[in-house]
Amino acid sequence: MIIILKQQANETKVKALIEEIQQQGMQTHYSQGSDVTIIGLVGDTSRVDEDKLRANDVVADVRRISEPYKAANRRFHPNDTHITVGGHTIGEGFFHVMAGPCSVESEEQLCTVAQSVKRSGATFLRGGAFKPRTSPYSFQGLEADGLMLLREARRLTGLPIVTEIMSEAQLDEFADVDILQVGARNMQNFRLLKALGHTDKPVLLKRGMSATIEEWLMSAEYIMAGGNEKVILCERGVRTFETMIRNNLDISAVPLLKKQSHLPVIIDPSHAAGIAWMVEPLSRAAIAAGADGLMIEVHNNPKAALCDGAQSLNLDQFAEVMKEVQRRAAFEGKIMD
Amino acid sequence: MIIILKQQANETKVKALIEEIQQQGMQTHYSQGSDVTIIGLVGDTSRVDEDKLRANDVVADVRRISEPYKAANRRFHPNDTHITVGGHTIGEGFFHVMAGPCSVESEEQLCTVAQSVKRSGATFLRGGAFKPRTSPYSFQGLEADGLMLLREARRLTGLPIVTEIMSEAQLDEFADVDILQVGARNMQNFRLLKALGHTDKPVLLKRGMSATIEEWLMSAEYIMAGGNEKVILCERGVRTFETMIRNNLDISAVPLLKKQSHLPVIIDPSHAAGIAWMVEPLSRAAIAAGADGLMIEVHNNPKAALCDGAQSLNLDQFAEVMKEVQRRAAFEGKIMD
Amino acid sequence: MIIILKQQANETKVKALIEEIQQQGMQTHYSQGSDVTIIGLVGDTSRVDEDKLRANDVVADVRRISEPYKAANRRFHPNDTHITVGGHTIGEGFFHVMAGPCSVESEEQLCTVAQSVKRSGATFLRGGAFKPRTSPYSFQGLEADGLMLLREARRLTGLPIVTEIMSEAQLDEFADVDILQVGARNMQNFRLLKALGHTDKPVLLKRGMSATIEEWLMSAEYIMAGGNEKVILCERGVRTFETMIRNNLDISAVPLLKKQSHLPVIIDPSHAAGIAWMVEPLSRAAIAAGADGLMIEVHNNPKAALCDGAQSLNLDQFAEVMKEVQRRAAFEGKIMD
Amino acid sequence: MIIILKQQANETKVKALIEEIQQQGMQTHYSQGSDVTIIGLVGDTSRVDEDKLRANDVVADVRRISEPYKAANRRFHPNDTHITVGGHTIGEGFFHVMAGPCSVESEEQLCTVAQSVKRSGATFLRGGAFKPRTSPYSFQGLEADGLMLLREARRLTGLPIVTEIMSEAQLDEFADVDILQVGARNMQNFRLLKALGHTDKPVLLKRGMSATIEEWLMSAEYIMAGGNEKVILCERGVRTFETMIRNNLDISAVPLLKKQSHLPVIIDPSHAAGIAWMVEPLSRAAIAAGADGLMIEVHNNPKAALCDGAQSLNLDQFAEVMKEVQRRAAFEGKIMD
Repeated sequence: MIIILKQQANETKVKALIEEIQQQGMQTHYSQGSDVTIIGLVGDTSRVDEDKLRANDVVADVRRISEPYKAANRRFHPNDTHITVGGHTIGEGFFHVMAGPCSVESEEQLCTVAQSVKRSGATFLRGGAFKPRTSPYSFQGLEADGLMLLREARRLTGLPIVTEIMSEAQLDEFADVDILQVGARNMQNFRLLKALGHTDKPVLLKRGMSATIEEWLMSAEYIMAGGNEKVILCERGVRTFETMIRNNLDISAVPLLKKQSHLPVIIDPSHAAGIAWMVEPLSRAAIAAGADGLMIEVHNNPKAALCDGAQSLNLDQFAEVMKEVQRRAAFEGKIMD
Repeated sequence: MIIILKQQANETKVKALIEEIQQQGMQTHYSQGSDVTIIGLVGDTSRVDEDKLRANDVVADVRRISEPYKAANRRFHPNDTHITVGGHTIGEGFFHVMAGPCSVESEEQLCTVAQSVKRSGATFLRGGAFKPRTSPYSFQGLEADGLMLLREARRLTGLPIVTEIMSEAQLDEFADVDILQVGARNMQNFRLLKALGHTDKPVLLKRGMSATIEEWLMSAEYIMAGGNEKVILCERGVRTFETMIRNNLDISAVPLLKKQSHLPVIIDPSHAAGIAWMVEPLSRAAIAAGADGLMIEVHNNPKAALCDGAQSLNLDQFAEVMKEVQRRAAFEGKIMD
Repeated sequence: MIIILKQQANETKVKALIEEIQQQGMQTHYSQGSDVTIIGLVGDTSRVDEDKLRANDVVADVRRISEPYKAANRRFHPNDTHITVGGHTIGEGFFHVMAGPCSVESEEQLCTVAQSVKRSGATFLRGGAFKPRTSPYSFQGLEADGLMLLREARRLTGLPIVTEIMSEAQLDEFADVDILQVGARNMQNFRLLKALGHTDKPVLLKRGMSATIEEWLMSAEYIMAGGNEKVILCERGVRTFETMIRNNLDISAVPLLKKQSHLPVIIDPSHAAGIAWMVEPLSRAAIAAGADGLMIEVHNNPKAALCDGAQSLNLDQFAEVMKEVQRRAAFEGKIMD
Repeated sequence: MIIILKQQANETKVKALIEEIQQQGMQTHYSQGSDVTIIGLVGDTSRVDEDKLRANDVVADVRRISEPYKAANRRFHPNDTHITVGGHTIGEGFFHVMAGPCSVESEEQLCTVAQSVKRSGATFLRGGAFKPRTSPYSFQGLEADGLMLLREARRLTGLPIVTEIMSEAQLDEFADVDILQVGARNMQNFRLLKALGHTDKPVLLKRGMSATIEEWLMSAEYIMAGGNEKVILCERGVRTFETMIRNNLDISAVPLLKKQSHLPVIIDPSHAAGIAWMVEPLSRAAIAAGADGLMIEVHNNPKAALCDGAQSLNLDQFAEVMKEVQRRAAFEGKIMD
């Protein structure tokens, strides 16, 4: 961490600042230039509060040089994290497709979709019971009944289930869900993240709509700081100025996350564009970039879907996409199992 | 609402679509062009699910023409909303300053600040007991003890208190808070918004970091749809590419919100820049643009603040800013009381 | 095109507006709703000025439904455009790599790089003679001498050359360049685009740093409207909030452009990230997404490069990347020739 | 400037790097930490090429601490710049309104507008002869004839004229224009900026649509590095995610520019929103924030305007806005003359 001092900063105050830092167990390097004078901080700066330093009279600016995340950082955990769920291993070297409807609508809908995506090669069933909708007048999900239907579909197909939790008050209700999904809008719902950190459940953490990668990893850090290291990162597109699509898949996130972190990375091409025909080209790009899996929306009758129908594949389209996915995962040397 | 049909769309399917819309109580206007054919929907479209329409085989795109928010919409509620809290009226024609520390740190700190900002002309005391921090290693607030100190400061000064609620699970704990603040990161925490809609507490709803004005008003709509119409909108800067400041005050939001909605609009210049010396020029701009109030961070010793010290004014600086605020609110003909 | 009328719009003025539109050769459909009344315009709206309509007293808003670009639009030109340069065909079904240094620095540098990239499989030589640098104090290119060296390298290797033109005043000087590149910062330098429209030179049009796809295609339209249909689109990353990389490759642009337009699409992974090690994963993603080629920066000694060294591959790294590119282009069934 | 070294960087290479830097006349401070080792550069770093440093094998990252602009920097030029044009002084303490049509359309239109805005208190006449339009099919301006009409209107009213130059090839044609405007799309047209740097004409430099303040000041630096210090900065809104307006006025730019630079700052509220009724509230905010002037679009018949009619005020509306502007400039103690 570098502290940039104001011009003509009061010497007594600068000395006091240096002593304060040293008392926190760090070394300091003072370096006076013609235009700018800086203090370098050496040691564990992950708990240093930048804002507090910035408020000091003599400080012009503060620049962090090492990353503020530790548990999620590959620098301190060089080996890839692998997470085992229902007999499947998620992480580098493996490739999984989580498929299912945006929202659970009925037993018939969910079981039809679950059996079909399983036949096509999906290894996890996704489906929303509680839905975060922009409008209070849109369908909000079947809620508790939706969770029951997910359990039923799991019993029928053996597919582990992934579904979104929206509040720490729901933890008991979600106790037997296999992977708890945190949605983009809750990426910085810190009460929820902390509560998840005290469980031992795998968490699929979606990226916030305009979050930087560092902010995203800091949200993973919230969960991991509580003791739960089973975090799967899911890129689902970021907001840009483009108007032709809903979100913009950040493909660079895959190599960047793989370098900065040891956590598994999956891509959600359905939300990343919001358009069904783009799921296939974006899936191809995701596999080539090095992702560990995909999360894809599938519906037995997209035009009657109660949410996000425009981005859902029907059963046959999904089967076609899966052939392409399998051919390409094999080309990359990934195990789909 | 306009539905744009695909080229050579199947006629039978188009007819089925038109009938389906008419059964929802809307009229349709069909208009065939050389390049493009459209269906216009006439009636109350606020409950029409665009996504569902988009998923229809024959639909190329859907464009909303009237706003999806109703309760928050000036079109249907032409008169300005005024909210009375602790004897003060918030809304058009009045001007209030809510001041206090980013986070409550101690009885001595909070009471010193509260008494001083009251003397300078603030009419509400702000202060965080539960703090949403980007890093799990940063100070998270005094929590329940912080709330107790806020009550104590209110008793001492008579200032009504504004403090942030982070989860619907906290509603009981916040029962005697005067204004419940929803932070930027929770603007789309729909569980929290719904729960707030079932109380009769004034809610100060901060804008999400990259939210559009429509999304923001839809979050207000979530609260209002539950029956609670006491919503105060608080602009606190949006994320842009600028690196010199933390956020970018969206000054256009003031006239836009005043036109589209009848709700009071407050500006938070402290978070909008993240730099103490910018609080004054941004406050001047906010008043001139037509805002109904300001929320300003004040600390008795900013360089020792446990959060956001860099953007906090000290007691004397705040007193100076308030003189400017009073002079300008008077120029605009606003009542500060 | 849809015109949304203001509430209680003056009837006489609305009639005048409708007549004015009909006199421009378009049909109108008038559709009155409870909340909103609209006029649909049917016919060729590409020459209709939206801004002028918006200025009309009775108009609340205008929404374009068909694209404002014609020549670049696949709707009117369903077949893929193929451009032949120096015996190579650029466009769907083919795959080309344009490689070379960011800036031409010396005969030895350029010829070493040119011969090496040719051996590795590149089919075009790129290199900047005139450099658009953010700082006036940075190296601005060898200018005319740089062009001379490019000609020399072409003579030596047979590789056609691609280099950036910055002003219409340079057209004569660039007369024998094979492909004229328009840089991101000049995407809306309309004087330059118009002038290029009156040549018969292939133009490689880079996307502006924050341009939408529609704005980009409108810039292509400027060139094509002048009669020159040889436009190659080059995606080079857009600006986002991410701080770990310089730009963010917009991978969705590939399928979107392929659907909306018939023009060839090239990816520049060097500028898209600004980091050498990311060139390979982004190239893999670009190929899988369906791009028609890559533009890659290569330097014989990146750490001594006078510009953009951090994103340049050295000769051996480029040779390695090319093996991967060839293996993957073959997998996609593309011809590299 | 701070160089962050890679972990386990080769010592010989690090020594070579340090020597290379010292040979450029700078001092270095080496500071080895447990996690991170850095080199601090002390001296004039404005000519140091960050990219070249980043390309070095042993370098992980480079962080600039002092600003890359010198001539435009208040640190080195503490006094405000004042520019005199046609007897008017532009800069701190003064306030000017530049008004006129988006594009010059006819003698009658221009002269009517010019006489009227002069009567209302404008001190400069703006008007476009060459128009940068997004579509090649939109009106492109009267070009040379437009310039002639501007001269005519100046002769008639005595108002100095401000008009946009689009290419360095036009300099002779614009020789007698009073203030040369560089449009947002040309902010990084470096050929044009360099050419303007070799004239002694005042230049009004608009901010690019997504440019940071540092990039904008670097474009000013291009002009000033050539010897022409008469640069006026004009904020005209930046691109954000907001869809209700065309651009978003960056009000923070006013205090930031006033702190970082000594150049005059004016605001264009017409382009900043793209909506006529927003010109007044944004003008109020601009004055309160400390701007040195406004540039406002005025048309005698906005609904017949050939460009940007939706954002143009008519003559009466402008007269009303000017009364408000005068009242507020007086309140701020500015001289309008």
